Amino acid sequence: MKVIKYLDVKPTKELPGVLKREVITAKDGAPNFCMRVFQIDPGVSTHSHSHEWEHEVFILSGSGEVVTGKKKTPIGKDSVVFLAPNEHHCFINKGKTPLRFICLIPNATKSTACSI
Amino acid sequence: MKVIKYLDVKPTKELPGVLKREVITAKDGAPNFCMRVFQIDPGVSTHSHSHEWEHEVFILSGSGEVVTGKKKTPIGKDSVVFLAPNEHHCFINKGKTPLRFICLIPNATKSTACSI
Repeated sequence: MKVIKYLDVKPTKELPGVLKREVITAKDGAPNFCMRVFQIDPGVSTHSHSHEWEHEVFILSGSGEVVTGKKKTPIGKDSVVFLAPNEHHCFINKGKTPLRFICLIPNATKSTACSI
Repeated sequence: MKVIKYLDVKPTKELPGVLKREVITAKDGAPNFCMRVFQIDPGVSTHSHSHEWEHEVFILSGSGEVVTGKKKTPIGKDSVVFLAPNEHHCFINKGKTPLRFICLIPNATKSTACSI
């Protein structure tokens, strides 16, 4: 068993204005998927991209949009987002506070410049 | 893509005092793992049990303990819990408000009387 507070994990700067904390990974013995917690500053967007793996996301706080192609969908506290493999997407913080969310991916992913 | 508010998912009563909402499942096209949101009433515990699959958990609100064998570990808002496959465990709400958490499991699990 591992029990931690997510803020005790040292963050990495995924992009300018985007922090990532890898809170459960294969290093913990997780056999199938890993949990990350992201924090996006107000006004900041992740890169629009796609990849071969899915995202399973739960929004902890803040507000924004998830953009898939030309579709913009509002997200906020308690939103759940499923992005299928190969679905083009980005996350944008449209609010005045950090947009914080959990994002899970399978362990077996190819390396990529940006993991959100 | 699927975007919902988790409270819009109809809950099932997993145990007396324990609600489960299955927010991302294989029915959504999730290929590897599924997301559930649990709510445990004050004073209530899940069954102590083990199974062949892992749990990846993020505590949204409330306070309690995760018990593995004789070890009791406090959990609260922003705690992250990894339970390895076959690790005996239960969750107890020791607070005065609902204990709410996200719990992810791989899709390929055997049927069980209680999934938390």
